[in-house]
Parts: sequence; structure tokens; C-alpha cells
Amino acid sequence: MSQDRLEPLSAAASPETAHDGAARRVSAVGGVSADEPLRPLAIERREPGARDVVIEIEYCGLCHSDVHMVRGEWREVEYPLVPGHEIVGRVSEVGADVTAFGIGDRVGVGCLVDSCRTCEACRDGLEQFCSGNEQGAGVGTYGSVDYRNGGGRTQGGYSQAIVVDADYVLRVPTSLDAASAAPLLCAGITTYAPLRRAGVGEGTRVGVVGLGGLGHMAVKLAKAMGASVTVFSRTDSKADDAGLLGADHFVVSSDPDAMAAARQSLDVVIDTVAAPHELDPYLATIARDGRLVQVGLPADPMPPVNPRILAAQRVSYTGSFIGGIAETQEMLDFCAEHGVSAQIEMIGADEINEAYERMVAGDVAYRFVLDIATLPEPESLEAGAGARLS
Amino acid sequence: MSQDRLEPLSAAASPETAHDGAARRVSAVGGVSADEPLRPLAIERREPGARDVVIEIEYCGLCHSDVHMVRGEWREVEYPLVPGHEIVGRVSEVGADVTAFGIGDRVGVGCLVDSCRTCEACRDGLEQFCSGNEQGAGVGTYGSVDYRNGGGRTQGGYSQAIVVDADYVLRVPTSLDAASAAPLLCAGITTYAPLRRAGVGEGTRVGVVGLGGLGHMAVKLAKAMGASVTVFSRTDSKADDAGLLGADHFVVSSDPDAMAAARQSLDVVIDTVAAPHELDPYLATIARDGRLVQVGLPADPMPPVNPRILAAQRVSYTGSFIGGIAETQEMLDFCAEHGVSAQIEMIGADEINEAYERMVAGDVAYRFVLDIATLPEPESLEAGAGARLS
Repeated sequence: MSQDRLEPLSAAASPETAHDGAARRVSAVGGVSADEPLRPLAIERREPGARDVVIEIEYCGLCHSDVHMVRGEWREVEYPLVPGHEIVGRVSEVGADVTAFGIGDRVGVGCLVDSCRTCEACRDGLEQFCSGNEQGAGVGTYGSVDYRNGGGRTQGGYSQAIVVDADYVLRVPTSLDAASAAPLLCAGITTYAPLRRAGVGEGTRVGVVGLGGLGHMAVKLAKAMGASVTVFSRTDSKADDAGLLGADHFVVSSDPDAMAAARQSLDVVIDTVAAPHELDPYLATIARDGRLVQVGLPADPMPPVNPRILAAQRVSYTGSFIGGIAETQEMLDFCAEHGVSAQIEMIGADEINEAYERMVAGDVAYRFVLDIATLPEPESLEAGAGARLS
Repeated sequence: MSQDRLEPLSAAASPETAHDGAARRVSAVGGVSADEPLRPLAIERREPGARDVVIEIEYCGLCHSDVHMVRGEWREVEYPLVPGHEIVGRVSEVGADVTAFGIGDRVGVGCLVDSCRTCEACRDGLEQFCSGNEQGAGVGTYGSVDYRNGGGRTQGGYSQAIVVDADYVLRVPTSLDAASAAPLLCAGITTYAPLRRAGVGEGTRVGVVGLGGLGHMAVKLAKAMGASVTVFSRTDSKADDAGLLGADHFVVSSDPDAMAAARQSLDVVIDTVAAPHELDPYLATIARDGRLVQVGLPADPMPPVNPRILAAQRVSYTGSFIGGIAETQEMLDFCAEHGVSAQIEMIGADEINEAYERMVAGDVAYRFVLDIATLPEPESLEAGAGARLS
């Protein structure tokens, strides 16, 4: 059986899978509908092919997009759905053709597990923009059609193991703490890529809007690149934290005088806020030819942008979307070199629904990481709906 | 008297000016309030200083921003106000220190007549972004405080003559028709600058939204740079014209199928529409790392932009604002080399209010130019309110 499919235990016990010893049943945590809490599930991972790596997952970061996706807020999704694309673990098995990884290696998986490999974007090492070929296009780590492996839906990292093509597996330097490195696979590359693309280096003036999972990574990465960093936050409650993370300046964005004082003072602003918010006040803080990169993607429409502010200093409003495989590896190596990783709050499987509520409320310092060792063994799960999690 | 001041004849006959023979009374057309039609006015031009050039104006283009400004739609303005910043004429007098121009030279004046000359923008040759010094900042050709010349308000090119510092005067190549060259001073540079900045050259795929004064210049300039040009227009009424101007493709923007077919097909889109309109459909026509430059500036708010479209291809939404003096000269020389100028409809002074209504209605192919020879002599104007124009 080559299909990456997710089934509750009852279905997994069907004759189709019972005859295939190579597929492996693992425990996971996922959603079964848009409005029910996450719960334990058993899923099956495919038999590894010649190019595959089997990873025993140790930690998986919780990303705000996991919440949007599992609740169907971004698009309609199929259930059950196991989120998770900030995956760190150890290699337990490699296919015959895999030379880049060996058993025991510490590795990571981010938002992508496959792409067409032939389009211009893939050839440019920008697999996140894969436009596809006749077979298919980029495959997200969860919720995507896994067309090269039977056409089932991919399932993510809130699970004990995952099978991934070696070309989409990252090497996680062992000098990084495994749990704190997990959020680098999404929050790290999401903020690293636009900083690099904007040419951030010694003395660049970087603004970071919002100090959450993405924002705290943006601060750390920009500082490691040599930038002077200004954090914008709605209240002063995070001022001390911003300083501890390395920020040089802190601006309370609800204070018009403070915002006016920051006028045209920045080269690049990374906006990490994932709820609709006015952009004009931040655009006004950008100097000539600077840019605002929105990396938080609200589910609801944003307020309009005033083109007059863009014209007045040739400011750009733009977006960014994770990074390619090579750049993600570059980011991990950069983090190892500069000792950068996420500030995390570790949770067990039974805390996941509470953690989701706290993410929605912005109450996390600064990234939840799920300790995969706390997942129940698949044998312990009842057939069918699975146990409830708090 | 060194003040550039505008007064109806009654005031101009006051003792203050009557004793100063060097200031010169010229005929003009301008607004006296936000909601009255333009009318003939007499204004006085300052005595030229050592660095000044006196220009006998031959032609002045009519820009949509003239309408916004004279009607107070962009900001509060002082009246009377004489618009006009697409000025072409002949030099009739030069100050003692002026070496760049001689009597009889064909010259132009665009949107700027002065700036601080010391700020970073001025030093970079980007006087349009002058941030000023303790004395003042950039001085617009009309409606600005002329701080180096007595602090009066500048008055624009709908007038017989203008006195301008030589550093802000452009050389208009004589191979260009004087009247058709006038719109280059604003519409030309407004579209040339963002095309150049985007690196447009052989084979670049350029989209132009709206085929009016700015749009038709964008088509001609992009073609002259070697681009493949796609025109977007709400109906097919301008399809033939687009072809005659050199466009390679024409897309009816109200046709969803046509817009879908243009998806991710362009590198740069120049959006010239000066009324609020949805941007997302145009952003979707831009390929990875491309940009939409909005050069039409609506008085009312635009609809919101969907950041997801920006993120999906790293597309930028940005603005541009005319160009510096050096770049404006470069544009005029480029136009002379490539035989590019505006398609104009010449009007006399008595047609100006009708022309304004037609501009608002988008009924012009493609730029009105005021023939300054049709202005009444100042002596013929009655003291006070001036005659009415149709």
C-alpha cells in the first residue's frame, strides 16, 4: 500500500490494509470536523519507497495556520485532518536510493513534502511557488493531495512518524535544541526569507509588527543579521520581552505620538499580525523605497491601503510565503551558526485544545511545541472516534 | 519685489506693486474657489534673480491632478489658484548666473520648481521626495509656498510666462513637437520612472490599466523600452486605439474569463486609473516577484487588497511619484530618441471648463493641451473677478 491515508482505527482494520504489513499505523492528534476539538486518531503511513526517509517525530510546533486550516477557515478541508508542519525528529529508516541521510540523523520537515520538480519555480529552488506539471503541483505537509503516493491526503506532524521524500527533508544541526528548533521549520523560514530578500544586514532598520510566534522569530533573526530592530505592539505589556529578545526599540502602536515619531524611520517592516488591522500607520513608518511584508495572513479582509502613502516614498506592500527547501536549509544553518531558535512552551497531547484557544487569544510566549512522546500508543486508542482530549 | 504672487487686477494695482517695474503682470486661467469654474486672472511673476530663467509659455498640458487640486479634493488650497505643471515654452530672459540656458531655447517645467537641495533625497537627485531643511522643502509648480522667493504661493502653467530657477528647468529637444511634448513633463515622467525602476527592457511583460493620459504614455514608453504590452480596459471601446498606440494585447477587465486567461502573465502592471477600483484582479495577473505600481491616485479610498494574492507570488503593490529633475531630463531625451510624445487634443482658454468636465468623464484622447496663445492679454481683463470662461 503506497497511499498516505488517514483513518480511524476501525477503518484501518479493514481487509485492504490488514493485508499490507509494510504500511504502519501510528498515533496522531487531529480534527474530525471544523467545529469539534482535536482528538487522538490513528493514521497509517505509507511503506517507504526508495527515495523516502522515515522520521520518528520528537517535536512538532503549533502554527496559527494549523488552527485556520483544521477549522476550515481558509478553505474547505477533508477530515480527519492531522495538522503540523514544524516537525523535528530522528531518521529511523531510509530508502535504497537515499544517500543524504542515515539512520539516527536529526532532521526536520516544514510546510512542503513534495512538488513537481519541473516547473520554473521548482527549478529555481522555490518549491513553495510550484506551479505544477501534468501530474500535479506542490504538496503541503498536511491537507494536500499526495499525487505521487496514491492520491490520498497528506497528514502532518502531530503524529509519531512521517514518511517523506528525502529531497524535502532538512538537516537540523545538532547544536540546536530539538524542541526549540521545530518552530524554525515554519515561523523561522517565514520570517527569514523576507528579511534576506530585503537584503537585511548590518545597520538595516527593521520593524516587526506583533510579538508572537512569527514576530519573536523575526526579531531574533533580524538581530542575528545585524539589523536595528523596532517592535510594534498594541500595548506596552511586551516591552520587556522585546528587549530580552534583542529589540532596540519598542513602539506602542496605539499611541499616535509614538507612531508619528517613528515616521519614515524603517527600511523593512515584517507584519506578523494574523488578524485584520490598519496598515497605513505602519506604511508611514517606512523610509523611501522600503517595504512592508505581511507574513500574517488574516482569514478576514484587511482594511484598504492608502496608495498615497505608497507613492509618497515609493513604499511597497508585499507578501512572502515560507521558503524553498534550499533556503530553509540555509536558515537552519544560519540559526545554528548564530544560536537562534524559538522561545517555546512545551505541551502534551492532552493540552492541545487549550493551546489552540490560547493561540487564538495571542496568549503564548512564543510558540507551543507538542511533545510527541505524550501521544498515546495507537493500540490504546479505541476503534472509531478516538478518545477526547481536553 | 521677489514674491511670486497671484492677484486679480484690482489688487495688482495696489501701491506695493505699482512701484516695482520689474515684476511682470501676465494673463492666466485659474480657480477662485473650490466650486466655481476656472476664469481668466491676471497674476504677477517675480523679477528674475541671478539664477532664474524667464519662460514665455507656449503650451500647458491639463493633468487630472489639476482638477483635484483646483477643486480642493486632495487638500485645502488657497485661491486664486492657477494650475498647470506640463509646461513648454521658450526662454526669453536669463539671470546673470545662468549658463545652462540661453534666450530662445525650448524648455519645459514639470511638477517641481524648487526643493531644499540639501536633504538626502535632493542629493540623490530625487527632488520629488525632498524632505526639506530648516528653510523649507520641495516646492510644487502651483499651490506651494515659494519660501525662497518671498513666501507667496506658486502659480502654474495656465499662464503666459513663468519664472523658474534654472536648476528646475528642463531642456525640451527640438525634434519633439512642442505641444505634444508638454504632457511628458508630468504624464511622461510619472509613467517612465516606474517602468525604468522596474527594469523594463526587451521582452518585459508590462500591463497598463486604463488608457487615458497616463495610460497611453505608459503604453508608448513601455513599447519604446522593448516591452510586450497588455492594455486592460473596462470595455472593448479602446481596443483599436490600444493597437494603434502599439499595445500587443488587449484585455477587457470586466470579462472574468479574459482576466483568468491573463493570470500570472505579467511582470509589471502600471495602474493609471484615478478612481477607486478593485486591485485583486490585476494583482492576480502578475507573475512571481512582479509588481503593480499605482500611479493614478483616487481622491476616495480604494477597496482592500488581499494579502494572500501578494504572498502567493511575492507580488508587490507599490506607488511612484513623478521623477527627479535629472530623470525627467533623461525621459525627455529618451522620448526624443524614440520619437515618443503624447496624443493631444489642443484647446483654447475658452474651452477649459468643458475640458475639465471631459477629463472627469474620461472623455479625452489622450491629453488636453492648452494653447497659451489663446489667453487674453492682461490689459483686456477687467479689474477684480475677471471674465467668465465657458
